[in-house]
Amino acid sequence: MRLLFLGDLVGRAGRTAALEALPQLIEDNRLDFVIVNGENAARGFGITEEIMQDVLDAGADVVTTGNHVWDQREALVFIERQERLLRPLNFPAGTPGRGANLFTARNGARVLVMNVMGRIFMESLDDPFAGVEAALDACPLGDVADAVVIDVHAEATSEKQALGHFVDGRATLVVGTHTHVPTADHQILPGGTAYLSDAGMCGDYDSVIGMDKEEPVSRFIRKIPSGRFQPAQGTPTVCGVAVEVDDTSGLATAVAPLRIGGRLSPAWPPFWPAAQ
Amino acid sequence: MRLLFLGDLVGRAGRTAALEALPQLIEDNRLDFVIVNGENAARGFGITEEIMQDVLDAGADVVTTGNHVWDQREALVFIERQERLLRPLNFPAGTPGRGANLFTARNGARVLVMNVMGRIFMESLDDPFAGVEAALDACPLGDVADAVVIDVHAEATSEKQALGHFVDGRATLVVGTHTHVPTADHQILPGGTAYLSDAGMCGDYDSVIGMDKEEPVSRFIRKIPSGRFQPAQGTPTVCGVAVEVDDTSGLATAVAPLRIGGRLSPAWPPFWPAAQ
Amino acid sequence: MRLLFLGDLVGRAGRTAALEALPQLIEDNRLDFVIVNGENAARGFGITEEIMQDVLDAGADVVTTGNHVWDQREALVFIERQERLLRPLNFPAGTPGRGANLFTARNGARVLVMNVMGRIFMESLDDPFAGVEAALDACPLGDVADAVVIDVHAEATSEKQALGHFVDGRATLVVGTHTHVPTADHQILPGGTAYLSDAGMCGDYDSVIGMDKEEPVSRFIRKIPSGRFQPAQGTPTVCGVAVEVDDTSGLATAVAPLRIGGRLSPAWPPFWPAAQ
Amino acid sequence: MRLLFLGDLVGRAGRTAALEALPQLIEDNRLDFVIVNGENAARGFGITEEIMQDVLDAGADVVTTGNHVWDQREALVFIERQERLLRPLNFPAGTPGRGANLFTARNGARVLVMNVMGRIFMESLDDPFAGVEAALDACPLGDVADAVVIDVHAEATSEKQALGHFVDGRATLVVGTHTHVPTADHQILPGGTAYLSDAGMCGDYDSVIGMDKEEPVSRFIRKIPSGRFQPAQGTPTVCGVAVEVDDTSGLATAVAPLRIGGRLSPAWPPFWPAAQ
Ligand SMILES: [Fe+2]
Ligand SMILES: [Fe+2]
Ligand SMILES: [Fe+2]
Ligand SMILES: [Fe+2]
Ligand SMILES: [Fe+2]
Ligand SMILES: [Fe+2]
Ligand SMILES: [Fe+2]
Ligand SMILES: [Fe+2]
Repeated sequence: MRLLFLGDLVGRAGRTAALEALPQLIEDNRLDFVIVNGENAARGFGITEEIMQDVLDAGADVVTTGNHVWDQREALVFIERQERLLRPLNFPAGTPGRGANLFTARNGARVLVMNVMGRIFMESLDDPFAGVEAALDACPLGDVADAVVIDVHAEATSEKQALGHFVDGRATLVVGTHTHVPTADHQILPGGTAYLSDAGMCGDYDSVIGMDKEEPVSRFIRKIPSGRFQPAQGTPTVCGVAVEVDDTSGLATAVAPLRIGGRLSPAWPPFWPAAQ
Repeated sequence: MRLLFLGDLVGRAGRTAALEALPQLIEDNRLDFVIVNGENAARGFGITEEIMQDVLDAGADVVTTGNHVWDQREALVFIERQERLLRPLNFPAGTPGRGANLFTARNGARVLVMNVMGRIFMESLDDPFAGVEAALDACPLGDVADAVVIDVHAEATSEKQALGHFVDGRATLVVGTHTHVPTADHQILPGGTAYLSDAGMCGDYDSVIGMDKEEPVSRFIRKIPSGRFQPAQGTPTVCGVAVEVDDTSGLATAVAPLRIGGRLSPAWPPFWPAAQ
Repeated sequence: MRLLFLGDLVGRAGRTAALEALPQLIEDNRLDFVIVNGENAARGFGITEEIMQDVLDAGADVVTTGNHVWDQREALVFIERQERLLRPLNFPAGTPGRGANLFTARNGARVLVMNVMGRIFMESLDDPFAGVEAALDACPLGDVADAVVIDVHAEATSEKQALGHFVDGRATLVVGTHTHVPTADHQILPGGTAYLSDAGMCGDYDSVIGMDKEEPVSRFIRKIPSGRFQPAQGTPTVCGVAVEVDDTSGLATAVAPLRIGGRLSPAWPPFWPAAQ
Repeated sequence: MRLLFLGDLVGRAGRTAALEALPQLIEDNRLDFVIVNGENAARGFGITEEIMQDVLDAGADVVTTGNHVWDQREALVFIERQERLLRPLNFPAGTPGRGANLFTARNGARVLVMNVMGRIFMESLDDPFAGVEAALDACPLGDVADAVVIDVHAEATSEKQALGHFVDGRATLVVGTHTHVPTADHQILPGGTAYLSDAGMCGDYDSVIGMDKEEPVSRFIRKIPSGRFQPAQGTPTVCGVAVEVDDTSGLATAVAPLRIGGRLSPAWPPFWPAAQ
């Protein structure tokens, strides 16, 4: 099985670039399953039902989120009828929507996708380790699930790596989001789980985490807001990570970054059939 | 001019790998100037005078640090006589040592090196933006300095990027450290400054930020310490970033990551003369 | 029923003062139940089994703790056999000891005592609100319990107050600890629960939160440790809060601070039988 | 000289109660100088020029602020012409307004008032200790100033206490604000400086730090905003601290809390001439 995960879509620029690229990527490379983090898809803050549909229409199977999940208030409502939208699983019991779900891939495989938020330097949600453990217990890899992907929406590299090791051998891919910067530490952990600390955003990298740089730079210097954060509109880079999955074990056999367009150096999974 | 910056040396494994590789790298590629972050060089915590000397003997010109700079108490003393060791420049006035200094490269160029700490999710030091501004004022690029390198030891990608834009066109390289994970966002900013959010550590990447993974994973789960953090001893990856400098402007003409050995995918600056 | 709660015993000075005062306070005022926060009883950090026994011998019925509970490693062991020692209930499942327990007061009443830690500006434990809710469900006031006391070990006044309102009418007393400063906001909330944001420490108030002031002041100024924190040894103030309980409803009929000795202005519950 | 400091006015209820009480308090007790923290005066967030004038009209000499100082954008403008409004002195150089100023009291004495923000668990401003030191250097007690009052707007009791000791003997009063809860640790430090960790707010104490309790309690439980924070409208308590100043040394000879009305237990400075 062939998986693709794209990092946080930031604003119109990042969203458009990702959604325009996706159909061709899926077709040319026969991608079986695509996950996209959409927490910044609506002008940088949250996601609307309309944008959610656009992401699905482009071929994504699941949309994960993070701390910005409720920035568009309608998400609290439509997440109840949209099972392909995940919010972090460690929100308190009773929170609308779900944080983990089992999906069927194009090749018929069952893919468990989880979205979980870290707690270091972030809002205090429920224990991400216990939450992931419970979701894995309910739906173990190689038993109920043919693949397991975990989007760890977190700030600290230590927490992301710890979670990677925690599930090593029990998940196909652990990929971080939230910092909006792609890391270069993709590897297959000793137990067979593919790992990357951050997928990076789909957005303009001449910015401050995807936002027009002027206002954030000014705030760092002056410590006074003088305007709103707006997504930067320069040429975006589409950032993600590709994984080849062993169909028997559900573990990863290869992992590589994807970076297309914009200011960052391009990267193309060497194991993908299409030429870059 | 040709610069190399290596990220945080973590413990014996990371330190040894970096110091063994360095002489050959310098010679084969005619590196003019080498900076190494050494804040975790002594068993993961701080740096001793002996290790400092080892790093210089291997060919480094300057050692930068970060929040762990004083973990080995002797650093408070020997930093006063060792002008090639920098501590973050935004410690309060009166702090031993210095945070910025002008050095002479092998090619005779004068290189201003700064070490500064971010404040987001970190100890509250003095304003990093004001501190960098003052150091640049004292020693402007193209005037007093032929190159300017800034090690931004920080947690948040937003703060690192903001600092990059803040000095864009006034520095040769802004490179982050502290997260111990290399990022893949190396680029030359619009004004000519090379930028990378994090150089990554020199250390074992089958770990939690360079430390034996067992104890940190256990603490995340149990919330109770059950032992000390020890540097992981698996095969390390040497991580850094290489920059080609325009001798007239002092700005960057090319930037690329370096990754050698261990678990991470290798990277070699395409503009370096030696074959990988 | 008549309750007394004493705030964090800090080091030898605070501990000795509190334990010397306690027997007389209990006898003179016919206190039915006494709770003491002991997280800083052992040289400022944690509690030993020996000190625990001293506190019980002085007449305390229960010892609560907080973020320092495990500073003395032996607590991880003896808490299992010492049911009168509580640790925050929102540590992860499987943590040694317990965070809530039902005790019998001198008057035969059953008192549910809980210890819970806040999460704002503190370690990310499990949800304190959900944890308290579960403990109340298991042992409701007026049903299983004749009184319910909750020690909210937390930094932020907002979180303490929110928890007070959350259980208003379902607990006898919600009292904060951790800041080591007594607050003057004791009141009976609209539903009948007595509330105080912080009981204050039993310790020397010519200090920085009970510690010799020199080292903490120096760290704030210099940002470099130059020694260890040691409990201040000046004349301590014993700080706590007294509550009169309605024997039918288990709610509070009166609440007042207690402050004896040292530098703070004295306070004596006006409803206590003994003269100050 | 006789000083009064009132804590954060929260919303209309707290503001009205304080401003209605102030003229009589001043007249009856012959108060020479009155300072009021106004950072939450305008519907809980910031202060307008109109409200500023109301506070002055009620007899206040100076208004201090804190992290909410710029919540009403007009403050960035009118602070430049209103020298009786202070913002924290440790904002970056170039920030509108001032953080310290010398005023003349009713008795002709010159009073230096400073407003400074802590950095623990708060926005990273410049060093509060260095900032206070500089302001004291420019205007030393007993030389240029006949009294020095410092409003330490901070979260952590440790930082407030450390600042108290740092200026002990060099200031008349160090009083904390920001937690919106009055503390009971008023004392005269060994060097003669009156100290109180927090003055408490002027506002409704059946609330969460002055705000209608429903929304904040709901956010703690659900982790999702469901509305805005609104100041609570119940009967407010006016909270502050009174200091008697030695006219020769400028140090404190007595300090006591003031609490009038609402849910908190009343407190009246025993050294004030008027009966409560
Ligand atoms: Fe994001
Ligand atoms: Fe995020
Ligand atoms: Fe480091
Ligand atoms: Fe660091
Ligand atoms: Fe404590
Ligand atoms: Fe504590
Ligand atoms: Fe306030
Ligand atoms: Fe505030």
